[in-house]
Amino acid sequence: VKLLKETCATIVSTDAASAAAAQALLDDKTKPRRSLGRLEDIAVRIAAIRGTAEPVLGAKAIVVMGADHGVAAEGVSAYPAEVTAQMLLNFASGGAAINVLSRAAGARVVVYDMGVASELPPTDSIRSHKIAAGTRNMAVGPAMTEAEAVRALETGITAASELIDDGVGLIGTGEMGIANTTASSALTAVLAGADPREVTGRGTGIDDVVWKHKVEVIRRAIEVNDPHPSNPLDVLAKLGGFEIAGLAGVVLGAASRRVPVVIDGFISSVAALVAARMAPDVSGYLLASHRSVEVGHRLVLQELGTLPLLDLDLRLGEGTGAALAMGLVDAALAIVHEMATFSSAGVSDTGA
Amino acid sequence: VKLLKETCATIVSTDAASAAAAQALLDDKTKPRRSLGRLEDIAVRIAAIRGTAEPVLGAKAIVVMGADHGVAAEGVSAYPAEVTAQMLLNFASGGAAINVLSRAAGARVVVYDMGVASELPPTDSIRSHKIAAGTRNMAVGPAMTEAEAVRALETGITAASELIDDGVGLIGTGEMGIANTTASSALTAVLAGADPREVTGRGTGIDDVVWKHKVEVIRRAIEVNDPHPSNPLDVLAKLGGFEIAGLAGVVLGAASRRVPVVIDGFISSVAALVAARMAPDVSGYLLASHRSVEVGHRLVLQELGTLPLLDLDLRLGEGTGAALAMGLVDAALAIVHEMATFSSAGVSDTGA
Repeated sequence: VKLLKETCATIVSTDAASAAAAQALLDDKTKPRRSLGRLEDIAVRIAAIRGTAEPVLGAKAIVVMGADHGVAAEGVSAYPAEVTAQMLLNFASGGAAINVLSRAAGARVVVYDMGVASELPPTDSIRSHKIAAGTRNMAVGPAMTEAEAVRALETGITAASELIDDGVGLIGTGEMGIANTTASSALTAVLAGADPREVTGRGTGIDDVVWKHKVEVIRRAIEVNDPHPSNPLDVLAKLGGFEIAGLAGVVLGAASRRVPVVIDGFISSVAALVAARMAPDVSGYLLASHRSVEVGHRLVLQELGTLPLLDLDLRLGEGTGAALAMGLVDAALAIVHEMATFSSAGVSDTGA
Repeated sequence: VKLLKETCATIVSTDAASAAAAQALLDDKTKPRRSLGRLEDIAVRIAAIRGTAEPVLGAKAIVVMGADHGVAAEGVSAYPAEVTAQMLLNFASGGAAINVLSRAAGARVVVYDMGVASELPPTDSIRSHKIAAGTRNMAVGPAMTEAEAVRALETGITAASELIDDGVGLIGTGEMGIANTTASSALTAVLAGADPREVTGRGTGIDDVVWKHKVEVIRRAIEVNDPHPSNPLDVLAKLGGFEIAGLAGVVLGAASRRVPVVIDGFISSVAALVAARMAPDVSGYLLASHRSVEVGHRLVLQELGTLPLLDLDLRLGEGTGAALAMGLVDAALAIVHEMATFSSAGVSDTGA
């Protein structure tokens, strides 16, 4: 718990002076003021994070964490739990959507087994950090112990740290875990104070009957565990997942090193919300890549005080939205570094 | 007018069978059905355009056309008319936003002088196709003759044709022309049957007083010229601009060769609407890159029956939104070509 506490204590608010300097720089470029809209917002936010008006980020990585969920036994998903392990192997062999989209974005993919139920065959492409063989079923008791939650969080902190030491300056988050929208909706309901009905979606594609059952399972999990909404570690341990805890750690680790994090969809955003409840300044280090189809996502982004960049009806996870949004981050920083100014280009500036 | 007529006659509807084959291919990839949302729509649309489930597009180009507008004399813009020429030179020297974003997207920029008022110094980077030294003031009479409109349209058709002959398989549109939102709002009002108030925006940044004046100028231009809404060439000649006519030609030329066109913001979309009124099947060849801040854009996209991919509060033009969206097109096609299938990856498919 020492690493977790130290990391949270290290996270400071982003730098408003650098943000202002970046906006002034953008206002001198040959275009009407603010006419590049959200692209300028990205550049300004990254300037604030890095503490310089003209940041250079270096390499990009997507951290994809996978784990199984005991609550899958309640029949809340359209897919069997075996698919978690199968998909991690698919990530390892480079054939999944996140591999394709990361290649397109020029980002490396780093895959963590945070607690897949089965033993995966050894491969260099998956880092084995199993906290346990899946969480316990939260519908009957806590998904994990607080010690397990801390271990998962600290694994994520270390993951971010190692990437940053290795030259990575932009980290995306992604996940895989059958039934992890169930855990995420439960976390959202408690952390944002919402009714489970309002924050429970269709996951990978369940019908009305299974959806109603999923809401009931979440309601039961909250009743049985009675988590303290103001204690994020308690909520995370009782209702979370190992990959969610791990990604919360990645967010904390990146923020403590002043590295921006591009968060993916619903589950990754819930992980970021857990992190933000542990260290409120975390929210300044986030870029929300997209608004997922998952109904709870809107509320989570609202709680984080961040607007999504893309709205493409994605509902896959894995970090796919984060990979897509990295192209916008590249574009925003290219504008900062490469565009001409009014004076250098001999263009009349009316200040509009 | 022969090239224009022949081109319009060549444009056929896109291929539904290839679209269905592309969707079937995507449904076999290791992800829940349709979970990549709009990214899958892009892939399916391009399959329909190219007539194959697995299209390869080749090189990318953004065609940026610039021209001056007589109506600028009415004081409808926040910038002086000289800025059109200044910005074309900025494009030529590679310092504008469109240069930066095209580089990031891997697209070449092709700049056309379709009718800038001043003589530009000779440069290899600007293709000189001046129809005239700017349009006439539409508030007192037709902006151009029908013969000029046809010449501009055919210049655009030829521009698309030459790029395609040169290996380009994805064309983006962009423009520069002080006062061209005034022309675009007038065209929108007539072609979509809307009141000028509802489709007139702030352009590059005018205040309330200038905005009211802009609406009145547009109202006057429509009254004075009395264009026939069902005759797109008449509407274009009376209220358009040389760059708008040129881009309408680019869209027609690309569609006639079955090449997809990524349209930029309000002005580029109005050009596409003119093209679609000349050859209705054109709309199947379009990808709308983004929803501009310009208030008329929403209606134009609605008339084209297409949803924008991005919503980033852009209001710059030049093709910047088109360049940004090209990254999504690359990503969509990478999914088609590179992702594993359920059977090849050994992942359980429940059909969800």
